[in-house]
Amino acid sequence: MEQYPKTKLNKVIRGAKRASYNKEEINKILDDAFLCHVGYVWQNNAIVIPTAYGRQGDTIYIHGSLKNRMITNLLDAGSASISVTHLDGLVLARSAFHHSANYRSVNVFGKVRKVVDPIEKMKALECILNHMVPGHWDNIRQPNDKEFNATLVMAINIDTASAKVRAEGVVDEKEDHGLPIWAGVVPIRQIASDPVSDTDLQDGIEIPDAVLKYVKNKS
Amino acid sequence: MEQYPKTKLNKVIRGAKRASYNKEEINKILDDAFLCHVGYVWQNNAIVIPTAYGRQGDTIYIHGSLKNRMITNLLDAGSASISVTHLDGLVLARSAFHHSANYRSVNVFGKVRKVVDPIEKMKALECILNHMVPGHWDNIRQPNDKEFNATLVMAINIDTASAKVRAEGVVDEKEDHGLPIWAGVVPIRQIASDPVSDTDLQDGIEIPDAVLKYVKNKS
Repeated sequence: MEQYPKTKLNKVIRGAKRASYNKEEINKILDDAFLCHVGYVWQNNAIVIPTAYGRQGDTIYIHGSLKNRMITNLLDAGSASISVTHLDGLVLARSAFHHSANYRSVNVFGKVRKVVDPIEKMKALECILNHMVPGHWDNIRQPNDKEFNATLVMAINIDTASAKVRAEGVVDEKEDHGLPIWAGVVPIRQIASDPVSDTDLQDGIEIPDAVLKYVKNKS
Repeated sequence: MEQYPKTKLNKVIRGAKRASYNKEEINKILDDAFLCHVGYVWQNNAIVIPTAYGRQGDTIYIHGSLKNRMITNLLDAGSASISVTHLDGLVLARSAFHHSANYRSVNVFGKVRKVVDPIEKMKALECILNHMVPGHWDNIRQPNDKEFNATLVMAINIDTASAKVRAEGVVDEKEDHGLPIWAGVVPIRQIASDPVSDTDLQDGIEIPDAVLKYVKNKS
C-alpha cells in the first residue's frame, strides 16, 4: 500500500504508534468529512479557519470569495496545511492521566496554486459540493458566469500527510484496575436527521435520492 | 453584554453580519465543545492540531506531554489562537453558489503562559477533564506526582475572540425560487451513545451519574 514520505512536517512524534502514513487510510478519513481546519500565518500569528473542502486524487480543493484572506494569504505563502478530525468517543479511564478520546485525524501538507483553468475550476466546485453530499451536483443549478467569476478556488497538492487514529478501550495502569472506579468508552458520532424542505418549493418537488442516501448513511 | 474588542486578528470580514463579539455567546460556544483546533507556526508553516481544552473565566487551558511540540512552540511564540467549530447542518440550496452550512464557530486569540503554580495546574487539569464530562473529576483517580510532573499545561488568555454563526434556512436568489429544484436543510448533530464499560471493572461498579447525564444530554 502506498505510503506518504515522513518529513519533519508530518512525522507524528507524540503517540507515534497511533500514526499512519498509508494513502488509502488517509484518503478514507479525508473522504468521511467535508469540513477541515486550515491554518495560515498572518503577521506571525497562526490563524485557524474551518472551511469546506473536496478531494480529487492527490488534490484538496478549497473555495472562497475573491478577497478571502485565508486563501489569498496561502496563495502568497505557496503552501498550506489542513487538519481533519473525527471524534469517535470519550475514553474515560480510572485515572485522570489516562483519559483520552477515540478519533481519526489527518494532517495534509502541500504546495498550493490558484485554479485558473475554467474546466478544472468547475470540476473543483463539483468536487467540493459532491464531497458534502455525493452526487448532489447533478440535482442543482450549477454556477453561472457571475458566480463562477466571483469564486476563488485553491488547490493544495497532498505532498505529504499523516493520520493519527485511536480506536480502542481504556488503557489504565495495571495497579489501578483494582480501584472501585468505573471506566469505559462513550461512543460519539455525528448524525444527520430528516431534511427540512424549504417552505417555498415548487409543487411536486421531492427530496433527491442523493440527499436521502446521505441522511440514511449518517443516521 | 460584554463585548470583545475588534482587532485585525479577530474581526470577521467575510460574512460580517454573522459575526458576534459577545462574550456570553462566545463562552457558550466554547463550553459546548471540548475539542479545539490549535494553530502554531513551525518553520514558516501554520500547523493545525486537534486537542482537548477547558475554559475557566477568560482562560483556555490546554495540556500535553512535556515535549509536546505544539505547546512548547506556542510558549516560545508567546501567543496562540484556537478554533472551535460545531457543525449544525447542511444548507442545500437550489444553486451550487448558495450551498452552505449551519454552524457555530469561535476563534480565540491571546497571550500564553506555562502554568507553573501547582494549585492552578491541578485546577486546570480538573477544568479540562470536567469540560469533557462535567463533574467527572470527582469520580476518578486524580494525578499522582509522577503524572502531574509529566504533564505540561498552557494557559491562553482570551485577549480577544469572535464568533461566527449561521443558523437559518436556504438563501437562494429570488429568480431561482421558480426552478423545479429541491432545497432544504439537513440538520447535523453530534450524539453520544450508551457507555461501554471496561471489561475488567470491579464487581458492583456502576456508571457514574456524571457520565449518564453527559450521554443523556448528548443523545
